[in-house]
Amino acid sequence: MSFSSTEQWLVRKILRMTGNPPFQLVLGRDAHEVAHKNGSSGKPTIVVADRRTLAELALDPEIAFGDAYSDGRIEVHGDLVAFLEDLMRSMHEGAKAGWYARLRSWWLDLVDDNSRSGSKKNIHRHYDLNVDFYKLWLDERMVYTCAYFPTVSAGLEDAQLAKMDHVCRKLQLQAGEKVVEAGCGWGALALHMAKHYGVTVRAFNISHEQIAYAREQAKRQGLADRVEFVEDDYRNIAGRQDAFVSVGMLEHVGPSHYEEFGRVIHRTVGDCGRGLVHFIGRNHPHPFSPWIRKRIFPGAYAPALSQVMHMFEPLNLSVLDVENLRMHYAKTLEHWLDRFDGSVDRVSQMFGPEFVRAWRLYLAGSLAAFRCGGLQLFQVAFAGATYRQTSWTRAHLYEQGDPTVREPKWMIATR
Amino acid sequence: MSFSSTEQWLVRKILRMTGNPPFQLVLGRDAHEVAHKNGSSGKPTIVVADRRTLAELALDPEIAFGDAYSDGRIEVHGDLVAFLEDLMRSMHEGAKAGWYARLRSWWLDLVDDNSRSGSKKNIHRHYDLNVDFYKLWLDERMVYTCAYFPTVSAGLEDAQLAKMDHVCRKLQLQAGEKVVEAGCGWGALALHMAKHYGVTVRAFNISHEQIAYAREQAKRQGLADRVEFVEDDYRNIAGRQDAFVSVGMLEHVGPSHYEEFGRVIHRTVGDCGRGLVHFIGRNHPHPFSPWIRKRIFPGAYAPALSQVMHMFEPLNLSVLDVENLRMHYAKTLEHWLDRFDGSVDRVSQMFGPEFVRAWRLYLAGSLAAFRCGGLQLFQVAFAGATYRQTSWTRAHLYEQGDPTVREPKWMIATR
Repeated sequence: MSFSSTEQWLVRKILRMTGNPPFQLVLGRDAHEVAHKNGSSGKPTIVVADRRTLAELALDPEIAFGDAYSDGRIEVHGDLVAFLEDLMRSMHEGAKAGWYARLRSWWLDLVDDNSRSGSKKNIHRHYDLNVDFYKLWLDERMVYTCAYFPTVSAGLEDAQLAKMDHVCRKLQLQAGEKVVEAGCGWGALALHMAKHYGVTVRAFNISHEQIAYAREQAKRQGLADRVEFVEDDYRNIAGRQDAFVSVGMLEHVGPSHYEEFGRVIHRTVGDCGRGLVHFIGRNHPHPFSPWIRKRIFPGAYAPALSQVMHMFEPLNLSVLDVENLRMHYAKTLEHWLDRFDGSVDRVSQMFGPEFVRAWRLYLAGSLAAFRCGGLQLFQVAFAGATYRQTSWTRAHLYEQGDPTVREPKWMIATR
Repeated sequence: MSFSSTEQWLVRKILRMTGNPPFQLVLGRDAHEVAHKNGSSGKPTIVVADRRTLAELALDPEIAFGDAYSDGRIEVHGDLVAFLEDLMRSMHEGAKAGWYARLRSWWLDLVDDNSRSGSKKNIHRHYDLNVDFYKLWLDERMVYTCAYFPTVSAGLEDAQLAKMDHVCRKLQLQAGEKVVEAGCGWGALALHMAKHYGVTVRAFNISHEQIAYAREQAKRQGLADRVEFVEDDYRNIAGRQDAFVSVGMLEHVGPSHYEEFGRVIHRTVGDCGRGLVHFIGRNHPHPFSPWIRKRIFPGAYAPALSQVMHMFEPLNLSVLDVENLRMHYAKTLEHWLDRFDGSVDRVSQMFGPEFVRAWRLYLAGSLAAFRCGGLQLFQVAFAGATYRQTSWTRAHLYEQGDPTVREPKWMIATR
């Protein structure tokens, strides 16, 4: 059977919309027919099951690819991550999104807006999944954000610990201070700050399952009197604190709510406090992957730094330090994907094979995006205009020493 | 003599335009009459010589204060820097610029635009002053930008050396690479990079005097074959280089030329190179002091980070690192002001007493602005989207060791 002219037209349309990435496209599960070939023989073969899938790809390549990969109508023979990296590069350089894909992206933004009720729904869909599922592939402390690897060969558990210390050192926490955390996941950072830096923490999250888990941990670790886990929206954070920290939540705030988020930060730290936001970002403003928004993270958005600066600037907050940890997120995702791949049978028992394939694509796609620079990871440390305890240099972030002696070592700037 | 109602009205107007700063205002050189008193007795006394000066202050406080302070019609009894700090704080919080001051600020922007010819004129006015004058109060290497003090007590010479190393480490220079510098002053950084990091440098500057001095230094240090000082506008930088660096020039580019500046950067480093810009910035967009623009730095502008991000983002450049060195510039200015004060007689012989007073006000005002946060100092390191040699962490910036063994010690990010 040779290709019909309709099929050939669809393939050409798909290639135009994806910037002609290097791969071999095969139609039909029997894979006799090569519909398109680009690049060397080392490049992967994409097997598209049927004409319906081909037509869906031509209409909205990103969402159709994700959905068809998830339910098995698309197979990738070869290195999935490398293929996704090539695809992202070619889409960045030469892709033209069609009207349907643009409309769908806009529609997703509309229905998944991160209003108070929308956030509740969006966060529930991802973070209220069974905690045993996340335990299969996260580190022992259940930190579901980019780790910080002091060396390339550090393990994931150490790197998540090092990330929390890196954040605490950037915040220059001092015993007795009050810290608020917006979006606390399963509570690891809040507990770490209280335990090792002697601060008291109010940690906010609207995921019921995560808060329940975090409270349990606080009790077990004897920290319930110093860490309060609050099941509430960040917009309800009230009261003056010494420091504000948010790791991996800004992605769920959405650009239309940045001004609101900025006001929450400013009323928390005022002109004398300081804070840190850690978030997935981009080199320039761009919508988040529509498939990820549809199936994995409804309402997600990764801002460019200009958008974050516009959040700080009207409040006269000083940006003290921006660090780009993009390759650390790639490394983190390598660990997660490895562990996930090692737990595929368990995950399949929990949620079925389609879930396994969808989440594998999400992890592999995220890894590819950080590797190729489609996504960045920024830590932004900031302070109110009259904050006076800025460290003189950043050398204290890199001081060696017994990590169990968590003694703040920065110097106070003096006049 | 008591105050006329006109004088009282003028004083009230001045206070409204400056946000009612804490000081005592006295009219007349004999200083019998206190026109206004705000704050404790420790606050300075401002002696305004005559009613004409009072009227000028009421019309355009910043320019009138600068000019009247310079020619002696205003005296500040007390700590000049502390007074200026208080003034800046109160102006930031509650000042309302009048129509005349706004019009004059707009007019300055118009006539001092940093076009090719405008830049030539603007740069000539400041940087082509007698090099012996700058030698009186800069460090021995003639570095006229914010130093980096590894410790608060480091001396100025060491701190300027440390700043150049800090920049070179951030750039991760490797022997044999090609670097372009936009705005090279008297050449210290270009020579340092070539001498200690083994790179070849093309360094641009439109100040004739500075280029002449820098070329002389290159010959003396035997570096003329590796450092080319080019008397030309940054807009004429051409050819692909491994790295782009610009320390203290962005302030002279002007926001209407940032897009152009971004294009120069991008065509220099492409997608595979990297660079660093070091500049005086602000927490939020705001015009530069009109008096400084009128008398000291025509065409100067200190951008907010959002404005700089808007320069990088359309070019898909990745921001790797932003460091705020505000207090280092305050410290640098303390050294410069000390040395300047110790050379007042020489400066007065060179340019007369009015020049001495004007430059003293400029240095003291800059010091006050960095102390109170009206100005910030940002170093932004960036790279093309496919730059692969990003250091794994920033720890290499803080490694100890013999500073004469300038061996790059970063780790290459590997996949």
